[in-house]
Amino acid sequence: MEVYFDNSATTRCSKGAANIMVQALTEKFGNPSSLHGKGMEAEQYIRDAKAKICKTMKINESELIFTSGGTESNNLAILGAALANRRRGKHLITTKMEHPAVSAPMKFLEEQGFLVTYLDVDQNGIISLEQLREAVTPETILVSIMYVNNEIGAVEPIAEAGKVIKDKNSDTLFHVDAIQAYGKYVIHPKKMGIDLMSVSGHKIHGPKGSGFLVVREKTKLKPIIFGGGQQKNMRSGTENVPGIAGLGQAAQEAYEDFQTKQEHLYQLKEALLQGLEGLEWAHVNGYTGRDSAPHIVSLSVDGVRSEVLLHALEERHIYVSAGSACASNKPALSASLSAIRVKKEYLDSTVRISFCVENTLEEVEYCVKNLKELVPMLQKFTRH
Amino acid sequence: MEVYFDNSATTRCSKGAANIMVQALTEKFGNPSSLHGKGMEAEQYIRDAKAKICKTMKINESELIFTSGGTESNNLAILGAALANRRRGKHLITTKMEHPAVSAPMKFLEEQGFLVTYLDVDQNGIISLEQLREAVTPETILVSIMYVNNEIGAVEPIAEAGKVIKDKNSDTLFHVDAIQAYGKYVIHPKKMGIDLMSVSGHKIHGPKGSGFLVVREKTKLKPIIFGGGQQKNMRSGTENVPGIAGLGQAAQEAYEDFQTKQEHLYQLKEALLQGLEGLEWAHVNGYTGRDSAPHIVSLSVDGVRSEVLLHALEERHIYVSAGSACASNKPALSASLSAIRVKKEYLDSTVRISFCVENTLEEVEYCVKNLKELVPMLQKFTRH
Repeated sequence: MEVYFDNSATTRCSKGAANIMVQALTEKFGNPSSLHGKGMEAEQYIRDAKAKICKTMKINESELIFTSGGTESNNLAILGAALANRRRGKHLITTKMEHPAVSAPMKFLEEQGFLVTYLDVDQNGIISLEQLREAVTPETILVSIMYVNNEIGAVEPIAEAGKVIKDKNSDTLFHVDAIQAYGKYVIHPKKMGIDLMSVSGHKIHGPKGSGFLVVREKTKLKPIIFGGGQQKNMRSGTENVPGIAGLGQAAQEAYEDFQTKQEHLYQLKEALLQGLEGLEWAHVNGYTGRDSAPHIVSLSVDGVRSEVLLHALEERHIYVSAGSACASNKPALSASLSAIRVKKEYLDSTVRISFCVENTLEEVEYCVKNLKELVPMLQKFTRH
Repeated sequence: MEVYFDNSATTRCSKGAANIMVQALTEKFGNPSSLHGKGMEAEQYIRDAKAKICKTMKINESELIFTSGGTESNNLAILGAALANRRRGKHLITTKMEHPAVSAPMKFLEEQGFLVTYLDVDQNGIISLEQLREAVTPETILVSIMYVNNEIGAVEPIAEAGKVIKDKNSDTLFHVDAIQAYGKYVIHPKKMGIDLMSVSGHKIHGPKGSGFLVVREKTKLKPIIFGGGQQKNMRSGTENVPGIAGLGQAAQEAYEDFQTKQEHLYQLKEALLQGLEGLEWAHVNGYTGRDSAPHIVSLSVDGVRSEVLLHALEERHIYVSAGSACASNKPALSASLSAIRVKKEYLDSTVRISFCVENTLEEVEYCVKNLKELVPMLQKFTRH
């Protein structure tokens, strides 16, 4: 049995998405900026993808910018908002447990003279709305809060945060990194006070190299990549038509039978948690109920280093993550685990198990069985 | 017969490139940053692509950064060099007929307080090395010159320019937009004094959404997209593994039987020029011999607007471009045609015919035949 439980790192591209990509690569391969029919064929893929995606969020097609992925979406939102609004103020707010694709552009802006407030999170990874309210000032141009944390699956109170922000300063833009949330939750940016929202294709069975940024009407944003003026000048460069077509298809598929899929993910999670119950070496981080993300379990293990457990599981063909996969091969200490103040010894003794709808209860059982066999063995090994 | 003569706008993705992409999308789909075997499988695609690409240019694998395409490559080169070297000076040099992916980031830098010198070109689109020599000062941090012009196929004296720049100021970086040149010429950046070189995948039968920037050893560059630190922190974001694999494959294919392919392109070009010879309404812009790019012909036509001719040809299933396709549906007046000072009436009466190796002499004949039929007819129509 092969068990891929690293779906928060990346997912397998769906057949539907791959098929439409091959068509756009090898058959209707025109440049959407070309004025002839081959260009119009290519443009049609973009229109279709837009329609499919916008339908999942009830936004207008003019509110969508395609990017090369989640990282670019976050950079465009944060750097683009800072560039466009710096005359109004130089203050930004984010949290202490964002993905590097948010915290790194924030750090860059600090170097450029912006001031950034980093909100605390509690032991379950949740921000305090009161601290947020206090942090927003007349100089605050942007607040960036992730929807679902990529390491522990904490779900932030986004709608409430949106209300707090807008009540305090109606000009402050609200950016949400929804890369681990889109496809797992029904998200209506308009209802939640979200002005900017980042999504990545390859986390939802779409292609790597694809993503989008929702930019709500009237949101002041400047581009960060300059050129031929594609996408209303907000993202120059020939559109990645195959990637966009694949992303549109994946988005549509993610919201087909949505309730069933979400329920299935929660059942997988609940089965895993049940299987771990009563094991004294197993410590699950953050909330574990329906108030947590359906697809992510952060598991700290007494006396076994993450990488050791990861490779031991790998020998049994079970693939999980040590922390998140997003730190580019560096097993750096996790910002999220530090932010929720896990015991020091768990910082490098935590694995992330993350599901997709293709996973089964049998796979969860197989994983639990192997954890039960492996952990005591590895603990002994460590103790010698 | 269907004749696609818009290969400088975009090319059909090769079967080989599409096949490897499907494999990377649906089978070996891991995240290259994951520490387990699925991650290593994905990383192997990147390594293979690097090896294939580096071999075509005799560069080291550490000298390659993958991007989302030519536009991002140009932006990274120009903005990244400006960010990294601004303490040494604030002067940049480019030409009056660059692609917007170069001229737009230059304009952005001007708004940020940098000084940009725009070199003239002669009636064939060629820069003056003497003017370049005069322009380089101790404050010049970057010179950016395109290798092959995308609209008229002018080939700049890159190696000579590299020598002039380095002789005058050895610290000045030399960036070359080789998006229309790579795959058509054998390019050895080291030999030519090139520090930074941009390439796009979809111009060489690779996928849209892929590209690379050559960054020679010791070149000071800062990233423009921030996050998880992938690609030695120079381009964060999960690598577009399928796109990179497709790009590597396309690069390898482009340089297989290279001489034969280049010769075939020149034969197509020569056949077209011969077919147009003696037609009083046909005016080919720039050089037309082996001193010009093998795949681009810029044709100005008396008394017929570009778009009218484009659509008339389209009805005969011949696809060409009005100017370049890169200005996103805006039939804006061409910077290149203005720079070479074509007669004013040709600014909007010029089409670009651009070949790939799959095109045939029969297709050229068919195109010439149709041009001869259509142009006199359209001229009459215009005159009424």
